Order: sequence, then structure tokens, then C-alpha cells
Amino acid sequence: MKKNIEPCYYGDYLQLDKILGAQSLESKKYGEPAHDEMLFIIVHQVYELWFKQVLHELNAVIDTFTPERLSDTDLIGVVHRLNRIIQIQQLMNDQISVMETMTPQQFLAFRDYLVPASGFQSIQFKRLEISLGLKREYRIDFDKQSFYSRLTDEDRALLEGLEAKPSLFELVDRWLARLPLLKTADFDFWQHYKQATDTLLNNDKDTIENNDTLSDKEKRQELNDWQSTRENFDALFDSSQYASLRKEDKFRLSHKAMLSALFIKQYSEAPIFNLPFQLITALTEIDEKLTIWRYRHAMMVQRMLGTKIGTGGSSGHHYLKKTTESNRIFSDFFNMATFLLPKDMLPPLPASVSRYLGFYLSESTANDSAK
Amino acid sequence: MKKNIEPCYYGDYLQLDKILGAQSLESKKYGEPAHDEMLFIIVHQVYELWFKQVLHELNAVIDTFTPERLSDTDLIGVVHRLNRIIQIQQLMNDQISVMETMTPQQFLAFRDYLVPASGFQSIQFKRLEISLGLKREYRIDFDKQSFYSRLTDEDRALLEGLEAKPSLFELVDRWLARLPLLKTADFDFWQHYKQATDTLLNNDKDTIENNDTLSDKEKRQELNDWQSTRENFDALFDSSQYASLRKEDKFRLSHKAMLSALFIKQYSEAPIFNLPFQLITALTEIDEKLTIWRYRHAMMVQRMLGTKIGTGGSSGHHYLKKTTESNRIFSDFFNMATFLLPKDMLPPLPASVSRYLGFYLSESTANDSAK
Amino acid sequence: MKKNIEPCYYGDYLQLDKILGAQSLESKKYGEPAHDEMLFIIVHQVYELWFKQVLHELNAVIDTFTPERLSDTDLIGVVHRLNRIIQIQQLMNDQISVMETMTPQQFLAFRDYLVPASGFQSIQFKRLEISLGLKREYRIDFDKQSFYSRLTDEDRALLEGLEAKPSLFELVDRWLARLPLLKTADFDFWQHYKQATDTLLNNDKDTIENNDTLSDKEKRQELNDWQSTRENFDALFDSSQYASLRKEDKFRLSHKAMLSALFIKQYSEAPIFNLPFQLITALTEIDEKLTIWRYRHAMMVQRMLGTKIGTGGSSGHHYLKKTTESNRIFSDFFNMATFLLPKDMLPPLPASVSRYLGFYLSESTANDSAK
Amino acid sequence: MKKNIEPCYYGDYLQLDKILGAQSLESKKYGEPAHDEMLFIIVHQVYELWFKQVLHELNAVIDTFTPERLSDTDLIGVVHRLNRIIQIQQLMNDQISVMETMTPQQFLAFRDYLVPASGFQSIQFKRLEISLGLKREYRIDFDKQSFYSRLTDEDRALLEGLEAKPSLFELVDRWLARLPLLKTADFDFWQHYKQATDTLLNNDKDTIENNDTLSDKEKRQELNDWQSTRENFDALFDSSQYASLRKEDKFRLSHKAMLSALFIKQYSEAPIFNLPFQLITALTEIDEKLTIWRYRHAMMVQRMLGTKIGTGGSSGHHYLKKTTESNRIFSDFFNMATFLLPKDMLPPLPASVSRYLGFYLSESTANDSAK
Repeated sequence: MKKNIEPCYYGDYLQLDKILGAQSLESKKYGEPAHDEMLFIIVHQVYELWFKQVLHELNAVIDTFTPERLSDTDLIGVVHRLNRIIQIQQLMNDQISVMETMTPQQFLAFRDYLVPASGFQSIQFKRLEISLGLKREYRIDFDKQSFYSRLTDEDRALLEGLEAKPSLFELVDRWLARLPLLKTADFDFWQHYKQATDTLLNNDKDTIENNDTLSDKEKRQELNDWQSTRENFDALFDSSQYASLRKEDKFRLSHKAMLSALFIKQYSEAPIFNLPFQLITALTEIDEKLTIWRYRHAMMVQRMLGTKIGTGGSSGHHYLKKTTESNRIFSDFFNMATFLLPKDMLPPLPASVSRYLGFYLSESTANDSAK
Repeated sequence: MKKNIEPCYYGDYLQLDKILGAQSLESKKYGEPAHDEMLFIIVHQVYELWFKQVLHELNAVIDTFTPERLSDTDLIGVVHRLNRIIQIQQLMNDQISVMETMTPQQFLAFRDYLVPASGFQSIQFKRLEISLGLKREYRIDFDKQSFYSRLTDEDRALLEGLEAKPSLFELVDRWLARLPLLKTADFDFWQHYKQATDTLLNNDKDTIENNDTLSDKEKRQELNDWQSTRENFDALFDSSQYASLRKEDKFRLSHKAMLSALFIKQYSEAPIFNLPFQLITALTEIDEKLTIWRYRHAMMVQRMLGTKIGTGGSSGHHYLKKTTESNRIFSDFFNMATFLLPKDMLPPLPASVSRYLGFYLSESTANDSAK
Repeated sequence: MKKNIEPCYYGDYLQLDKILGAQSLESKKYGEPAHDEMLFIIVHQVYELWFKQVLHELNAVIDTFTPERLSDTDLIGVVHRLNRIIQIQQLMNDQISVMETMTPQQFLAFRDYLVPASGFQSIQFKRLEISLGLKREYRIDFDKQSFYSRLTDEDRALLEGLEAKPSLFELVDRWLARLPLLKTADFDFWQHYKQATDTLLNNDKDTIENNDTLSDKEKRQELNDWQSTRENFDALFDSSQYASLRKEDKFRLSHKAMLSALFIKQYSEAPIFNLPFQLITALTEIDEKLTIWRYRHAMMVQRMLGTKIGTGGSSGHHYLKKTTESNRIFSDFFNMATFLLPKDMLPPLPASVSRYLGFYLSESTANDSAK
Repeated sequence: MKKNIEPCYYGDYLQLDKILGAQSLESKKYGEPAHDEMLFIIVHQVYELWFKQVLHELNAVIDTFTPERLSDTDLIGVVHRLNRIIQIQQLMNDQISVMETMTPQQFLAFRDYLVPASGFQSIQFKRLEISLGLKREYRIDFDKQSFYSRLTDEDRALLEGLEAKPSLFELVDRWLARLPLLKTADFDFWQHYKQATDTLLNNDKDTIENNDTLSDKEKRQELNDWQSTRENFDALFDSSQYASLRKEDKFRLSHKAMLSALFIKQYSEAPIFNLPFQLITALTEIDEKLTIWRYRHAMMVQRMLGTKIGTGGSSGHHYLKKTTESNRIFSDFFNMATFLLPKDMLPPLPASVSRYLGFYLSESTANDSAK
């Protein structure tokens, strides 16, 4: 035992008087307490505790990414924390099954007392979205409006302050863009890459054209999709074309960050790319789990309320389904698979890249071993 | 040990020679075996084994529902089997995480060898959809087409045969419609019910109109939604109005079945409704879990392929997202919450209903105790 | 909106000022805040919130079982609440994976500040154990002692008060014992049952004796086990023998309750037994999930601390493994499978039992239909 | 589409004729087919498919560890494959819930036809245990015997061949022992380390002695445990003492491997230790998940059979509980937490170690950057 440490008691340490004294049923105020309102309160309080923990990890990750350079040790810490967030998300997704033990009728027993409270007012959830990188312009109309009308002035100020700061998305974008992969990879490399991808895409076109199971209409549709993939691909090698597709929201990552990420995914088995690859994979996973949460949440609300309005005075289910796809943040990491080559078509990793990155990413090691 | 039973050995019993001898890598045929193709094969084989088990339970449930009358003992068996299906679905949903341990690049190492194989060709999955109640007219165009062009004649014949038979949806619909709830519930009951729901809906309208956080545009939108809920509700009491909304696919259940289901959900705590309520809940859960599976599957495909076409020669991710909502079967059970009343607004269960149902649903018990 | 309801806001309703203001790091008091202490606090607070919810359900169940008679509607409510507890337990078990994202070293960064806080001091967990039916005499020595030395006077008084009240185990035992199955089942039934089980057990003995894969020593061991199963079985039909085995803690249920439970499991497909069977199954599941939680918890502690002592000043891992088996409450429901017969060996359900139970368990229905 | 690739069809590719044609019910042979036997067969077949996949990954990992040196790229592959095994284990553990939808009585309907088949005869599971590192001497008596009497000659020969080859445990042990951490870490480092741990252990002793909540008896017990921890710790610095404790099975890792592993866990945030740390964590996780599987499996068998004998002619539940702890393989990685120091008590990583390891583990990178 360290010296001068005061004894610590379980209940005091966890402040259980506050935690366990924070459930008061609205239904009790107005008459008969509704047995199931307790579940409703506790499920939401648990969500808020997990949000606090996720924000704790996320803010630490954002702090790590804020300086210009970060070491491999820093990256290890970041990946560890993102993986912890993923574990918590898994739990939050499964928690919907607990909420679903409440029947619509059990909910109706106290719904009317909660007006106009609404999950939209969870400041922590909004902080989480903004810190990850959800921009106000991506939000659906209803959600944009809610900033102005549903929040207290103080909360709105807090969130607007947060919107002014760089999000994790932006910081990761800048970090990827800064990686010196592209300067050193010489022209031949990208030429080779472009040719290989051309071959791949043309094979795909053949496959569509020779697919007798498609009707003419479907074939046209598939060829249109192919054409659009083709154009996205061409944009990879043309900054101004990329910029214009980005304006249409077809890409969110900057051009340089996109190329770096592609590079990392292509050569993920190279030791120097192992940590960056783990980072990209963890962010993809976080986006996926958040999307599943939104989707399951929307279905749970539909099951509980049908098309009735929620306590916030609007049809929640409707709203939530819409945000499921529109609020995705790292969707570029999903779509990126479009541009990946199989290993046997890959140009070998340019020595210059490997050398430079080795130096950069594993700075201290390399310095030591270079002595 | 019973007499004349031959000894049984683990490996023989499970026919492990077949099961473990059924993995041959296409990549090996054409050169270097791709390590990760084994996972691809085994994940799909496990899915097919689970499909077989789900069909085994589903067919038993369908057989039970086929005769005109079913006893409470029958219903107990049905609920037990549906709950087993739900447990298997939970596993199938989680299994996507195993597939996601394959990186896009690992998949590309053998993708080209699999053309034009496609998950659309899983006959068991199509049987499952059809047996649950997915009608060809609900399928999206691509999926309709696949019946004619992607299947062998034999498989198509099998599925078309199945389409001609009553599905679980239809059998449950008929069973619900046959329940004698409605004949005996006298006019006053439904009058009372209608008044109570009117009050509830009018309260909702007030809430929307007094919701200052909504813009005028949003308010109009919400009032439109409310209006449509209102019309759906009015249709509950008007067969011809119901029929015309059903043609627009706003309802899938027949009018009588809808009213019975509503009745059961409203009075779920009455012992006579306990088993029917468990049945409805299980079917809701099956629909929800299947929907989540489709959604997660679509996201997994996007992560693996981006917007590239799949081995079947079309963009899987695109297709799969579309089917997520369109292929839902028991969505009426979700939307039904729209019409539910809180317990304190409910008319008491009419004695006539209770008596008749008691006789019908618990036949043997009632007969015995009536002696 | 109901009249005279004051508006309700999300953050106020959930008392988020308390909930989110209850995390203060001990490590911060004494120097550098340890990043990972936040996780430690929040994981424990979430557990305490779930404990509160589980106690909320459990107490409602206990209240329902306290009067002499309970209706089928009551039983439906009980089963619903027990199933909700199971869903929460599933989440609590999975939550261990979140805790395991903390490395031993991260924990060591603040462990010393927590002395002598200990999970043994969770009053809610002790309440949960006592309310389920854990008797002080079953607790291991260390745990018995903790009542006298580790708790405040107030907490100890609260728990001792609870120990004096009937637990769920006792109430279920009494309810089972009260079921009129046994009075009415005539002698012939139990004779038939005894004969059938004799045949089954003798077959098992033959199987052991003819099992050439067992060594002589193993065969003796297996025959000893068989002999003990035989004696347990004989005790089923002999109250005084049962009583003496119960003193040795081989059974915990009373003799009558054991026979009723056996009856219910044997004839679970009879509608009158459906709810009682669901009750027994839910209690079995709760016991199983709690046991898994203890086991996983013990392993997590071993992984975090090895054989180091915990903050409470004793080797937690050691202690926790011991409680895993000793603290089981409904183990009779597990072992009961010993006495079950296959369906084709079962005597038919005596009409007298069916009639009487039909009247008792489904009182209102039966009354109505009997009119 | 690559040239000369023959078209591939879903059902043919997955050999569904074999997979879906491998379920034949024993109960059907002897009379009425038992509906639930299908589940029994399919659950076991799915397990066997997953075992095949786990062995596929495990064998690839073993092959990678077999040569004297392995590169960082190799380690990345190993960690990836072990993490895939963990995902599959998660699924296998949850699959027990599917099996538990079978009631004891449903199982009894076909149990007698399966004699003497037994899960002990799963050759793949035994291969898995042996390949991970389970030695025959660790097995409990019954299990040892089963090699000689329950297996066919062919199977026994196969397993004995496998026992003669190095297991993953041994290969990892050798690899750890080869790491040049210890040669270069000079005397002062270990001196410093020993002193720090002494301080830590003495603090723990004080905590026990000052713990007024412990009875005298408990205090003695705790001090005995502390003494044994103390001796284990002393053995870390004394090869011959270590060797004698290892003979008593208190340690399984070789002395050098133990020290390397300890080193890696202590400095896990150093980039050079990141992959080795991920390796150790993954092996710990595999051991934990396998242990949980054994425990849950034992409980499921108890629930299904009570103390009845299984189809193999012995009491499965009894046997399975015993193997849960005895068959653990990487338990040293759990107990290792005993010896870990908090970060602020750690001596700084010796430059010599860092330099040498940097060179060794990141060979290619270091070479490049050293140019």
C-alpha cells in the first residue's frame, strides 16, 4: 500500500448514492407508478454512461492526433482505445434486446408523461457524432433544425464550439495526407497500378456483358454503375476530377488521404503499414457498428410505436431510418474496396516508400537500429 | 440400452467423411491455393446447414398450421420451434463477424474463380423466404428475373411449386381470421375502442401542432403523416377502405386477421391470449432478425467489394440494401403498435369473447373442468 | 398530451447531472490521473444500474409469489419479468469483454488507490443473491465472514433483514409444493412411473457394464455414480430418505416441490403446464447465466491480477472460482434431468390431475367456459 | 474474368449434395423419426466444420512458427489468423444456446439409439487440443484411457503422430526463449526489476496483515498464498528453483520463455513489442474462450442429462467439469499478471534490448532505414 492513501470504500468510490438515487418515475408523480418506466430510465442512463466512456476514449484519440507528428507508440495507444470503443459499441447494440423486452403497451403506460423529452436531446450523443466527424450539412433537415430549436442555448453553444474544432475524421484525413507515400512513390508505380486496375475493371465489364441472366434493362443499369465506378477510379489520378466528385459528396476524404489509405490497404501485410491498417480497420468497424445501432434502434422504435409520433412530437422511426445511411462518416473506407487489386496484380512496394516510411513511422526504432 | 440397437459411432453418425470432405478450393485448381478460400467455403456451408435446420422447423410449423383447428398443445410446439429459429438467427447474424475477418484483398485472391456463382442461387434461402411468405411480386426486379434465368429448371420448378402452397404468413393470417373474437365482440366494444383511439390520435395531433421546435415545413410533413395514420386507423373499421389500402400494400394481413392480432396484442396478459401473443412476438422477432441479417450482409459486401460487381456479375451491395426493407414479411406486426391503446384506456375484455375463446383455445382443459 | 402534465426534458428526466457527475478518479487525487480508471468506474456503475433493474424485477416477482394463490395472469407477468432479467444477464456477461480491454498494467496504475474497496461490498449484489435464495450457510467461509467485518452496521442490518424474509427459491418451493398434483395422482401412476425409471436406470447399468472402453477403475467409479443416482431416485418415493439426502445438501427443494417440478417437466407440453414449465426454465436459465458470470469474472480477475491480492486485500480469483459452484441456487432444476423419462415410457397424464389443475391454474377461463 | 476459368455454380462449389445429404436420423431407422434429432446432428456437424476451419488456421500458424526465424510480416499473418480463431470460438460458445433449445425429454427420444457414440470420439477436437499443446499427461485419467480404447487404430495412430510433433505451445515457447532480450539486458536491469517487485509484494503483505476484515484463519490462508506467490517470484531469478516448480506443473513455459513473455507484457507499448504482445494476448484469449466453452458445455450436459450417463456410457457432465481447468494450455499468460509492475515502477527499457530487438524483429525495415 502506498503511503498516505486514504481508505477507499466501494460505494463511496462509485458514488452509488448519486447513481442509484437518480431514478424517479414520472408516472409516479401523476398517479400509479408504471413498473416498466424503471427499465426505460435505466436503459437510457446506461447508454449515457457508455457515451461518456466512448467520449473519454475518443477525446484521448483526438488529442493524440492533434500534433503534427505521432509516434508508433502513440498509434498503438490510439488503436487500443478505438478497439475498446468497438467492444462498448457491441454491448450498446445488444442492449437494444433489453429494451425490446418492453411491449408497446407497457411503454404507453407512461409515454404521455415524457413529452417533449426526446433522444435528440442527448448532448453526449451529438458530441460523439460531431467528434467523429458528422458535419451539420450531412444531417437531415429535421436534425439540422434541432440545433436551433430543441437545445438550450448553453448546449447549442457547446456543440457549435465542438463543430468548429477538427473532428477525428479531419485529423485522420490530415494525418493520412501527410504520410509521405506519394511524394516518393515514383510515376511508374502509379502507372503500373492504373494499368492493373484498368484490366480488372474491363474484366468486370466483360462479366456484365456476358451475363445472360440479366435482362437488357438490368444490364444497362449494371453498365451504368460500372461506368460510375470507372469515373470514380479515373478521378483517383486526377485531382480536379476528384475535387468535383468530392463536392457531390461521392468522396469525403481528401485526394491525398484517399491515396494514402488505398496504399495502406493494398500493402497491409508490410510491417510498416500494420498499425495504420489497424487504425483504418478500427474506424471502419466503428462506423459499421454505429450504423447497425441506428438501424436496430429505428426498428425497435417502429416496433414500439408503429407510425405513432414519439414523445418528442415527431415520428421517430421515420427519422431514424433516414439517418442510418446519411450519417455514416467513414464510408470511404468501405467503398475503397472498389479500387483494391488482388495481391498478384500489385506492383511491388517501391523501395523508396518503404525506406522513408520505415524512418518516419518507426522513428525511434529506426534511429536506434541505425546507430 | 434398447434391444437390437446396432452400435453407433460418432464419425459415422455425423457422416463426417461427407461433411469434412466437401471443401475443395477453386484456387487450387488453377494454381496456388488461396488460404482464405477455406473460410469462404466453410462459412457458406455452415449457413446452408443452418438453413436446413430452419427449414426443418419451419416446415413442421407449417404442417401444424395446415389443418383447420390447432390445439393449445400444438401452439406450444409452434412457439417452441419458432424460438429455436430465433436462436439460430442470432448465431447467423453474429457469423457475419467471422466473414469480416477476411480482408477485401484476401477475397480478391480467389474471387475470379467463382464466377458466376452467387448467393442468389441458394435454393434453401429462397425456400425459406417463400415458406415464410415472400411473394414474387414483392421481390425487386432483379430478384424476380433471377427465377427465370439463374436457376436450373429443376430448382425453378421446386420453388414455383412452393409458391403455389400456402406460406406461413398465409396460414397464420387464416388462423387469426378464424379466431372467433370478432363475431362475439359486440358493437359496443368496438365503439368504445374507436372512441379511445380517436382521443389518443387527437392528442398526438395537438402535440404536433404545439411543437414549437418544428419548422412550418416539418409541421406540415408531420401532419401529413398523422393524416395517413388517421386514415389507416379509420380503415380498421371499414372493410372496403381496408381492402383498398391493402391493395396499395399498406397492409398485408387480411382485415379479420389484423383485428384479431390487434385484439391479442391489446389483451396479451389474459391467459387465453398468452400463446397467441407469444406466437405474434416470435414472428415479429424472426422478421426483425432476418432484416438485420440482410442489412449486415449488405454492409459486409460493401466492405468487401465496394461498388465492384460480385461473382454473380452484378453489384451485390446495391441489390442487398434494396431487399432489406422490401422483403419484410410480418411488418404489419411492427406497425400495429400504431393502433394500440394504453391499458387504462382499454375497454374491458368482453365476457363473450373470453368465454368463447376459452372454449376454443383450451378445448381439452375446458372440457375436463366443465364436467 | 394529457392535461396538466409539465413538460419533461431528456437530461432532467434522466438526472444526467448526477449520473454523469459521479466519476471522480482516485488517481487524480494523488497525482497524475490514470486514463483507464474511468473505464473501471463506469463499468462498475453500469453493473450497479443493472443490479438495480434486476432487483426491481425480482422484487416484483417475489411480491407476486407472496400471496397464497396466484393466477395465470400473475404467472404470465412473472415469466415476462424473469425473461427480462435473463436478457440483462446476457449483457452483464458480455460486459466482461469490455473490462478485459484493460491490461493488467493499466489496472496497476491505480489499483493501490482503491484499497480496501472491493466488489464484496456491493450491497445490491448481496441483495440479489439473498433474494434469489442464497443462504448464508452455503456461502464459503470468506464470504460468511464478510457479513460481520466488511459491511457497515446499516448494510449488515439491511441484509440480515432480507435473509429473514422468504427468498424467491423458498416462495417457488412453496408454490410448487402447494400444487395439487400429488394428492390426486393415484397410486398406480407413481407405480408406473417408478417401474419405467427402474427400467431406464437398469439399462444404464448394463451400458456401463458392457462398456469395454472403460478401465476396471473407471467402471467402478461409474458404477458408484450410478449407485448414487439410484439412491437419489429411490428417495423420490420415500420422504424420510429424501429428507436425509436433503440434509446432506443433495437436494435443496422440498420433497413435494421436487415431485411437482418433475411432473411439470415431464408433461411440459400439456397446456396447463406451459406457464409453470416456462417458469422453471427461466429460473434454470438465470442460475446458469449467473454461474457463467461468476466463472468469467473469476477468469478475468486471474488475467488482471494473477495470484496477486485484489484491492480488498485477498486473492479474488481464488475466492471467485470457489463461489462459482457453491453459490448455485436452482441446481435441482439441472439435476432433475436424471429422473426424466422419454415420452414413450411416460404413463399418460392422470385425468384427475388434469381436471384439478385445469380448474386451479386456469381458474377464470375454466369458470367462464364451465358456465 | 480470367481466361479459361470454367463457370462455377453455387451448389456445386459448396458441394451441397454432400453437405445437405449427410443427415440421417437414427430414430427413423428404428421407428418414428424424432423431430429434434435433426438439430442434434446439425449442431454437431456445424461444430465439426468450425473445427476444420480452426485447424486450417492453426496449422498455418504452426507452419509459420516452425522455421528458426520469422519476420514481422509472418507475425502479422499469425496474429490475423489467431484473431479469426477467436471470432469463431465466440460463435461456438454462443452455439450452446441453440443446443439448449432442446429439452431433456426431446433428447431422451433418441438418446438410446446413439450408444456408444460420444463427443470424445471427435478426432478433430483432439487434434485441436494436441496442436494447441495439451499433453497426454495433463489429461484426466478417463481421457488418457480413451486414446487406447475408444479410438480406431487409425485415429489413434494419427493422434499419436501429432503428439510427437511440436505443438503451438512448444513453438511459441521456443520462439520466446530465442528472443535475445535476456542476453543483452544487463544485470542492473533485472536487479532494478527484482527490487521493484519486492516492494510491490511487501506492500501486498502489509495490506493483508492490516486487513481487519479477515479472520485469523483467513489471514493465515492469505499469507500462505502470498508466500507461494513470493516463492514463484523468487524462482524467476533462479533457474534451478524455476525448474523444480515447473516439475510440479506450477509453470509450463520454459524459464527463458517466461522471462521474455514478462518483458513483452511489461513494455507492450514499445513498437517493437506490439506484435509479440498481440500474439500473447490472442493466445490468452483463445485459452479463455476454450475454457468458457468447456464450462458452458459441461453445464449444458448437466441440464440435459442430470447425473444420467451419456451415450458414451459415462457421466459426461462430471468428466467435462474436471477438464475445464486441467486442460488449460496457456495459463502462464494468465498468472503472469502476478509479476507485472505498474508503469511508474518500471526500469526504463534498456537501450541495448531496444536496439537489438529493433534489428531482429523489424529486420527489413531496420535494414532499409539503416542504409
